[in-house]
Amino acid sequence: MTEMNGAESLVRSLIASEVDTCFTNPGTSEMHFVAALDQVPGMRSVLALFEGVATGAADGFYRMAGRPACTLLHLGPGLANGLANLHNAKKAGSGVVNIVGEHAASHIELDAPLTSDIAGIARPVSHWVHASASAADVGADAARAVQAARTPPGQVATLILPSDTAWTTGGQVAEPCAVPERGHLDTTALDQAIAALKGSDSLLLLGGGALSDAALDAAGRIAAQTGCALLSEWSNARMERGAGRVAVGKVPYPIDLALDALGGYRRIVLVGARAPIGFFAYPGKPAVLTRDDADIIPLAGAGDDLVGTLEALSDAVGAAERLPAGIGARQDIGLPQGPATSEAIAAVLARTIPENGIVVDESVTTGRAFFGPTTGASPHTWLNNCGGSIGYGLPVAIGAAIACPDRKVLALIGDGSAMYTPQALWTMAREQLDVTIVIFANRSYQILRGELTNVGVQNPGPRAVDMLSLNRPDLGWIEMARGMGVDGCRAEDAPGLEAAIKAGLSVSGPYLIELAC
Amino acid sequence: MTEMNGAESLVRSLIASEVDTCFTNPGTSEMHFVAALDQVPGMRSVLALFEGVATGAADGFYRMAGRPACTLLHLGPGLANGLANLHNAKKAGSGVVNIVGEHAASHIELDAPLTSDIAGIARPVSHWVHASASAADVGADAARAVQAARTPPGQVATLILPSDTAWTTGGQVAEPCAVPERGHLDTTALDQAIAALKGSDSLLLLGGGALSDAALDAAGRIAAQTGCALLSEWSNARMERGAGRVAVGKVPYPIDLALDALGGYRRIVLVGARAPIGFFAYPGKPAVLTRDDADIIPLAGAGDDLVGTLEALSDAVGAAERLPAGIGARQDIGLPQGPATSEAIAAVLARTIPENGIVVDESVTTGRAFFGPTTGASPHTWLNNCGGSIGYGLPVAIGAAIACPDRKVLALIGDGSAMYTPQALWTMAREQLDVTIVIFANRSYQILRGELTNVGVQNPGPRAVDMLSLNRPDLGWIEMARGMGVDGCRAEDAPGLEAAIKAGLSVSGPYLIELAC
Repeated sequence: MTEMNGAESLVRSLIASEVDTCFTNPGTSEMHFVAALDQVPGMRSVLALFEGVATGAADGFYRMAGRPACTLLHLGPGLANGLANLHNAKKAGSGVVNIVGEHAASHIELDAPLTSDIAGIARPVSHWVHASASAADVGADAARAVQAARTPPGQVATLILPSDTAWTTGGQVAEPCAVPERGHLDTTALDQAIAALKGSDSLLLLGGGALSDAALDAAGRIAAQTGCALLSEWSNARMERGAGRVAVGKVPYPIDLALDALGGYRRIVLVGARAPIGFFAYPGKPAVLTRDDADIIPLAGAGDDLVGTLEALSDAVGAAERLPAGIGARQDIGLPQGPATSEAIAAVLARTIPENGIVVDESVTTGRAFFGPTTGASPHTWLNNCGGSIGYGLPVAIGAAIACPDRKVLALIGDGSAMYTPQALWTMAREQLDVTIVIFANRSYQILRGELTNVGVQNPGPRAVDMLSLNRPDLGWIEMARGMGVDGCRAEDAPGLEAAIKAGLSVSGPYLIELAC
Repeated sequence: MTEMNGAESLVRSLIASEVDTCFTNPGTSEMHFVAALDQVPGMRSVLALFEGVATGAADGFYRMAGRPACTLLHLGPGLANGLANLHNAKKAGSGVVNIVGEHAASHIELDAPLTSDIAGIARPVSHWVHASASAADVGADAARAVQAARTPPGQVATLILPSDTAWTTGGQVAEPCAVPERGHLDTTALDQAIAALKGSDSLLLLGGGALSDAALDAAGRIAAQTGCALLSEWSNARMERGAGRVAVGKVPYPIDLALDALGGYRRIVLVGARAPIGFFAYPGKPAVLTRDDADIIPLAGAGDDLVGTLEALSDAVGAAERLPAGIGARQDIGLPQGPATSEAIAAVLARTIPENGIVVDESVTTGRAFFGPTTGASPHTWLNNCGGSIGYGLPVAIGAAIACPDRKVLALIGDGSAMYTPQALWTMAREQLDVTIVIFANRSYQILRGELTNVGVQNPGPRAVDMLSLNRPDLGWIEMARGMGVDGCRAEDAPGLEAAIKAGLSVSGPYLIELAC
């Protein structure tokens, strides 16, 4: 019997399994885990003032590091506060290890104020949920949680630790469990894909890990050889882009544009992508975005070996020696004068996205024009929200910045979205993360004004419109940011935005730009 | 067949059932419900920029209005963001009607980005969960949801409305369902209580509705007649207090103080209260706070007729004509000079709590000294957090202010707690609510420093302490508040606090005081 308590065995086992970053907001039931952080070197702990920041940061960390971070959350309500960004992480295929404290086993039956059904709260957003039974189990349970989180493409694993498992001795450090392999090539589907990809009415639809550098290169060769089109899903967890890389467009969000974009394709091969559907249902419109007679071939899913699949497909169609089609070319885009329209902002982004930068995109409406012009920007990585729950962007930027301390992060966030998790600014200041934030201060849930019409509401009245407006009072982003230790400025037009982004990228630590638009 | 759509029938049915206030953050799937707000007069809609604000406001509304408000939330993630304050509402016995939009039935099976198990997310915090099947059902389902929410003492009811039930015609306005009655007197338990309440080693422990004016009056008479002691639970959803009312102390939060406070009682009668247990489990300490040999008599539970029970008990022990014991006397407390210690703040509160004011108390550590001295303050209502999930105070203050527009609200909030739901400030500004907020800026999760010791952690290291510290950077509450349209000032000591509270109470609309402590 060792003298190590369960809490220490947890931290040592996580580190043994290569989990070395913890995004946390702890409480009483997690105090022994917090104490163990000092006894064990090697775990970076990052404090968040709201759990949605912690879970979103873990999502961003996984996307950029390719391995999970853990969260440390206080009982059911702490987990509940992190749930929306775990939903987003789940939909993005991000691996996250949640450590959730629980009352001591003897205390649960007393139904104390903080008692809740933690497993019940966890299940809708978790692929794996387990509660440790004793201190001796904690280490092995942690290793299994990491294994679950690393199951391709990445899963949400929630480990519930009663506080007596933390403070009791008998903890055992666990060896890492084997990392599950990605699924291998389906040769039958490969033959179907080879037959399908011929000419401009065929589409290779990419998602998830099929948007890496190597995957894009193979896809570009396939397009060059077969004449097929390339597209990605509307939301992509991570996409490599910019000058010198194969440029891939997106299926548009607005339902009518999406139907138009996909209506010409009779044969669609899916690699890491799902068959395209609408984000929402709209009265009188189809939810499936492809032609009724389209032949859809699921060649490889999110958890499969997507680079290997695309390389095999490239070889099979004889594209191995081709130059990839559609390589983004650096363009000489002039600085737009005047107001920061969506198109003007896109031009500024094309000019200012830094070499090897990470763009976190939660510009729900303002950003719809950004994608095309930035094809020729400096090479960069683009992260989208895959779960549709707003408030993902600022937390994901934290995780990306911590995973990649040598890269600049540019976070493009709608004002409505930013108000969901503003506490992220404080963590950025505390950790001095190189994140430049642009807040699109259009002072409304602009997307919903369009959606009112899309769902068939005619002439919305003043009370309805009021529920979509963020004025009365206007939000003062510069003051809020300063209150959380983040410097910034307001930009009124496109030239002002460019100067502000340059200023933000040149400083060390976070910088916030409130953009009038 | 009427031409009314489901959304309109929802709003009309809620209003028919006396639900006339909606705290909302809607999305695409709720657009028809938003549009219906203009077609139907009588529903006050209050926009929150984060769903935890909406659900907490509904909790506060119920506590002060005695009838439920509704929330309107966007799909599973919107509900998830409101979950922690629904947990608190559930533990407080507050009735809340959640309206949660869902994808159209045909869309759910497509597993769109925002698809989630809404019922699964709702269940851990809801007493009642139902999804409407068609537009024709929505009205009746809404009436049943209100009935569930009004089941004494109050319940959380969650109604899931697929968007096609909103936009399809055939909506039917429903009559209100009967409001469930409170449970009646248990005469066997009454006889046991009569026998038990004799002398100073007997305790009448009050909770929930047993802390109303009429209930306290009866309890005071019983104490005068029998010599029993009176106490309330540590957290009370609503307590009437102040000069002229029967003063009732609380079971302390710290485990050792709680054991001391209850150790002398051999017979304990529960009216609206539960048998006292510790908030958390601590190694080597009991979780049940009462003596092993104590005789505990559950006379009436939270859902019973508590005033009727206490009146019957008063009559049975012959106390009907007694003067109540322990009536709070107005005291002449001098203005303390010097720093704002917990005791000095308590004195300032005793001097400044306004006549008929509502105090929302989330002063987790700083506030432990507040209760005694404010016994002699002007008559007021005191609201506690019953679920232990921080971030309840600012949202509850919104609901209390909207339920009672003629009363001043004084919100006492720890800085760590306030950072959970800071978006509440914007709603207070938008609705111009008379809420004076005192932020106790001790720049740490102070409670957890004590808890580290309580759970047996010796000599926590710098990394552990860092996870409990809200400095680096300091939070600038005045700037954050101004950024959300709320004016305020910083107070450095006790006289400064008194001047600031008086300033806040004298203005119309919200006012925030950052108190150095």
